[in-house]
Amino acid sequence: MDKRKVLSLRHVLMLSVALNVGLFLRLGYVGEGWRAEQSLHGFCLEEKQQNRGAPMEDFSQKVAHVSKGKLVEAASSSVAHSDVEDGGQRDINLDHGDPTMYERFWKQMGDKTTVVISGSQYISYFSDVTNICWFLEPEFAKTVIRLHKLVGNAITEGHYIVVGTGSTQLYQAALYALCPPDASEPMSVVSAAPFYSSYPLMTDFLKSGLFKWAGDAHKFSQDRPYIELVTSPNNPDGSTRKPVVNQKDGILVHDLAYYWPQYTPINSPADHELMLFTVSKSSGHAGARIGWALVKDQEVARKMTEFIEINTIGVSKDSQLRAAKILQAVADSCDRVGTGSEDVQPFFDHSYILMEKRWKQLRAAVEKSGLFSLPNLSTARCNFSGRNFETQPGEIEDCEIFLRSHHILTRGGEHFGVSQKYVRISMLPRDEMFDLFIERLSEIQS
Amino acid sequence: MDKRKVLSLRHVLMLSVALNVGLFLRLGYVGEGWRAEQSLHGFCLEEKQQNRGAPMEDFSQKVAHVSKGKLVEAASSSVAHSDVEDGGQRDINLDHGDPTMYERFWKQMGDKTTVVISGSQYISYFSDVTNICWFLEPEFAKTVIRLHKLVGNAITEGHYIVVGTGSTQLYQAALYALCPPDASEPMSVVSAAPFYSSYPLMTDFLKSGLFKWAGDAHKFSQDRPYIELVTSPNNPDGSTRKPVVNQKDGILVHDLAYYWPQYTPINSPADHELMLFTVSKSSGHAGARIGWALVKDQEVARKMTEFIEINTIGVSKDSQLRAAKILQAVADSCDRVGTGSEDVQPFFDHSYILMEKRWKQLRAAVEKSGLFSLPNLSTARCNFSGRNFETQPGEIEDCEIFLRSHHILTRGGEHFGVSQKYVRISMLPRDEMFDLFIERLSEIQS
Repeated sequence: MDKRKVLSLRHVLMLSVALNVGLFLRLGYVGEGWRAEQSLHGFCLEEKQQNRGAPMEDFSQKVAHVSKGKLVEAASSSVAHSDVEDGGQRDINLDHGDPTMYERFWKQMGDKTTVVISGSQYISYFSDVTNICWFLEPEFAKTVIRLHKLVGNAITEGHYIVVGTGSTQLYQAALYALCPPDASEPMSVVSAAPFYSSYPLMTDFLKSGLFKWAGDAHKFSQDRPYIELVTSPNNPDGSTRKPVVNQKDGILVHDLAYYWPQYTPINSPADHELMLFTVSKSSGHAGARIGWALVKDQEVARKMTEFIEINTIGVSKDSQLRAAKILQAVADSCDRVGTGSEDVQPFFDHSYILMEKRWKQLRAAVEKSGLFSLPNLSTARCNFSGRNFETQPGEIEDCEIFLRSHHILTRGGEHFGVSQKYVRISMLPRDEMFDLFIERLSEIQS
Repeated sequence: MDKRKVLSLRHVLMLSVALNVGLFLRLGYVGEGWRAEQSLHGFCLEEKQQNRGAPMEDFSQKVAHVSKGKLVEAASSSVAHSDVEDGGQRDINLDHGDPTMYERFWKQMGDKTTVVISGSQYISYFSDVTNICWFLEPEFAKTVIRLHKLVGNAITEGHYIVVGTGSTQLYQAALYALCPPDASEPMSVVSAAPFYSSYPLMTDFLKSGLFKWAGDAHKFSQDRPYIELVTSPNNPDGSTRKPVVNQKDGILVHDLAYYWPQYTPINSPADHELMLFTVSKSSGHAGARIGWALVKDQEVARKMTEFIEINTIGVSKDSQLRAAKILQAVADSCDRVGTGSEDVQPFFDHSYILMEKRWKQLRAAVEKSGLFSLPNLSTARCNFSGRNFETQPGEIEDCEIFLRSHHILTRGGEHFGVSQKYVRISMLPRDEMFDLFIERLSEIQS
């Protein structure tokens, strides 16, 4: 391993323990996988060509292709993947953030969270016609309210609940609801860089006349209405965020997908106009595709419901039922006083401890290295757990990396509106893959 | 009942037995319900005012509102409904088409179609990374192929399967996939009137720069690329459809949601470029929000998958699993030769017989009447059932109606691109509501 080569790359490792779950690319392939990965991150091309002998034309084609539909690029690859097979030659995929880390907890729960749905249930389009969000299952709504109250991370009183097919759909519903239908030009949508890398694509993929992506909120200075996305903790860097534009015509959307006690200290219940949450990030059930919005304004809630009605005529009843059961189990596990269920480990304890352990492993590997460094993040007290801890994930700067040549796949900073010297790594895979990652990281410095 | 008044309305009753399922409005209310219903259909205002005393201003406001988001209008009403309560004063809602008619069959099936999902299953975003549609559950795909082969209504060989959150999402995915991303102006989307009343809204609600609704295909004459939706059997009138524009730059999307043997004779397996199907119409499980597309072109399948990835990051795994189990039960019930399961009534037999019975009831009520008439539809042989029968639903013209004043809620023809003299009625409610409808219809003529 040529250390000078490594240093010359000048890429900074932006490690976010969990905030990287939002994006997910299937890049863990030998051969094709490399090319896809390189084009997505747009650097190390020359070096990789030397290593793999792939022609330059392929890379540029990939780049052109990926710029239009990057998420699909790898997912649609027909090459079977093998993320954990080792020998140092197979790729460790830490680019997509499939939250399989929590799988073990749910296995331990056994039948407690098993749902049973008969063929004659949930046939109708309708869940509750007395609710503005007429396709919202009452049981799911009840559980959301209970969990927020228990965790203390959001105020539900005075908010309407709108359920969506993941917070992805709710983000689009929010844009539809917040933009006037008859404006002469599309509303600008901004977020402070580094921002969640899917925002630009989700905003612009249909070339809507209602809204358009306008990039980094720090650079927005036009004197007209805009929507600012405030992602806190932020994806990808874990930072706690406030609005940055602060003009009078601004409308705020708070993406609080990671505002849960395994990721960051809960210091007060959020009480914003429009807040987005998702099951994928709270309990890890990404496959259910269930998210929810807490919305103060009735008309906005109605228009978000309208979007989901036109887009998908509601949201899977089966997944709402399952999400209700799972979040109920999360709440039960944390709300044990006097219930006699002390045999169950609280979910947020389990997930916090697992995350803390991974951070320790990472710090140990990084500290042994001459190539990486970690910042000291500020510590805060979590009102939910009573623990004092640093936000985990956090942004880690000044780590020069060469992870790619060690078959560790990550995502480049340009996808988040920052320089290519940043790289994001998912730390939510199953243990085997995470352990392999730590092992390789240690090898790099030796 | 003043018969002259009835006749003077000159509204034609367009009864489609099942094709009306696609739309669903919650309009079965006393008071508010009337206003919503009237504004949606845009006629009988004066007469209704006399009856109900509601101010004219309210109607015009409602009309303006409904034109932007008509589906939500009634769904979001907070007035509790009571569809079947009688005395002749409560509304019978036959405007939305919730397919509750099949509920009884699924109750009879007992545990055979019950799904059981543990908390540790289906956590991942991914279903099968070797498939272009990487979020498609293999079990669901296998069942779709088996069912089409058994029923003989579509060729699956040479087609990719793309799963969607209902065929509604797949329709939007198809538009995204078929329109060039860099065209100077949006592609025109047309369908022969009367067309499914949600098409215009689904096409235009985001003011996309990629595509725009261009109305009745019969009136389309521009010499440039276009997309024609061929809905067969058609919603709302049940007619068998072929493309009508037939220009060289046309791209066809076949919406075959109702091409199942309870609705129409299956004369040959459809083998088009892009075909849409949905669980809501085949088995009646609207609440699962599962549809599928059969797509010949690989790149179109890839781009449809990309749309769903950006829009909702895949499709509920829970509902795919449930849909697989239900469609498997449908196939099992019809594929009994040598399986020893003769105790189960074949689903398509059950649903055909139920539909046939309702048609007979309707014809009897209509024939006794001096106000309604039914056309003689042509009869064809169904290759699946071996039965000779008329498409049920069918278009019924020359029926002058006054259903509204009898509290029977329907949907006006202007939503389907035809004259207001047409009205569509859903005939897929539970038996109690259908029987009440027949009873009232009989009363009208007496």
